[in-house]
Amino acid sequence: MVLVSGGLDSATTLALAMREGFSCYALSLDYGQRHGSELLAAEKVCRMLGALDHKTVKLDLTLFGGSALTDASIAVPEKASNGIPVTYVPARNTIMLSLALAWAEVLDARDIYIGVNAVDYSGYPDCRPEYVRAFESMANLATKAGVEGKRLALHAPLIRLAKSEIVKLGTELGVDYSLTVSCYQADSEGRACGRCDSCRLRREGFLSAGLPDPTRYFQD
Amino acid sequence: MVLVSGGLDSATTLALAMREGFSCYALSLDYGQRHGSELLAAEKVCRMLGALDHKTVKLDLTLFGGSALTDASIAVPEKASNGIPVTYVPARNTIMLSLALAWAEVLDARDIYIGVNAVDYSGYPDCRPEYVRAFESMANLATKAGVEGKRLALHAPLIRLAKSEIVKLGTELGVDYSLTVSCYQADSEGRACGRCDSCRLRREGFLSAGLPDPTRYFQD
Repeated sequence: MVLVSGGLDSATTLALAMREGFSCYALSLDYGQRHGSELLAAEKVCRMLGALDHKTVKLDLTLFGGSALTDASIAVPEKASNGIPVTYVPARNTIMLSLALAWAEVLDARDIYIGVNAVDYSGYPDCRPEYVRAFESMANLATKAGVEGKRLALHAPLIRLAKSEIVKLGTELGVDYSLTVSCYQADSEGRACGRCDSCRLRREGFLSAGLPDPTRYFQD
Repeated sequence: MVLVSGGLDSATTLALAMREGFSCYALSLDYGQRHGSELLAAEKVCRMLGALDHKTVKLDLTLFGGSALTDASIAVPEKASNGIPVTYVPARNTIMLSLALAWAEVLDARDIYIGVNAVDYSGYPDCRPEYVRAFESMANLATKAGVEGKRLALHAPLIRLAKSEIVKLGTELGVDYSLTVSCYQADSEGRACGRCDSCRLRREGFLSAGLPDPTRYFQD
């Protein structure tokens, strides 16, 4: 079970899980994010890499708001900030992992992959290794599998990698990054702004890896 | 933040949280359950007890299936069974608590209430005390509040009570149980079958508490 957002990290994670020999089921969340182009990207990535099935769950997190990604009245920042940025979506990873857990349980899948990253993590609390371990412990108590003594594993293989290492790894694994969308405010065709946090991290990743950046920007 | 399903346990939990002096926000999940009458019951219960706000999140768990409550082709059993029953919805409590966590984080609320019960828990893994503690640990690592050293508490005040004790407690607190719906296959007017697990536990609760059972059954 692999969470696929349509971005660079989750595409690399799916490619890694495939290389490990898993038959992969991919899950995306349509949570009312600012643009739908990342969900379209998720679909393309899953097809390209050969996921067995890909489902998109619809869940309207704009009902709660509280983030620049789920509340249109909060602007996406274009300068680095201290502390937890306004693009943080409260409990988003917990919600996505809970949904992955639900589908995994139905399928009797025991391995869940998420592409979180603690190096370039932008200060999100739910991208830290201690969070990943705590979710795994909880998941093992939450489910039938846990009761029956079968262990569920939560894998976050990118958690300690720099963006440049992720890009190199994915390139080796044959990921076509031109299909992925990382930008917080991409346009409907998936072209990136080049100015938000997520764009900056991505651009620097390709630059420092010495690889060509296939990202399409508005001005292209 | 109180999870309210429209059933007997969560109504009692909301009444308890109100008595503790909390201003309560109530959250329900429309997950594609067999009938909508429990969501209507949740609304009535929140109004009766004076919740500050009540939101219902729509999330279609029939996409995954795997339970008699989310897959119309699996019948609701009318006899007690061994092990985890088919009415168990994979990861449902984890999903509901994740959503409660999201809204709590937006509101800066630090107390989440859930009406799970380990005595009459029908064998659901996500109703056990060790599960509740594990979710709380995870939640404290998942959120801004956790990073800032503010503690989130997950309360499950009914977890060690028998159904009869819950019914007595709620009656003292002024809960009108005629508004609540516990049945797994209630009709559109909220009338109960009287035969499923949930109906049996509820009926025995009133009986053993020596209190009149206000439940409306099909045959009434």
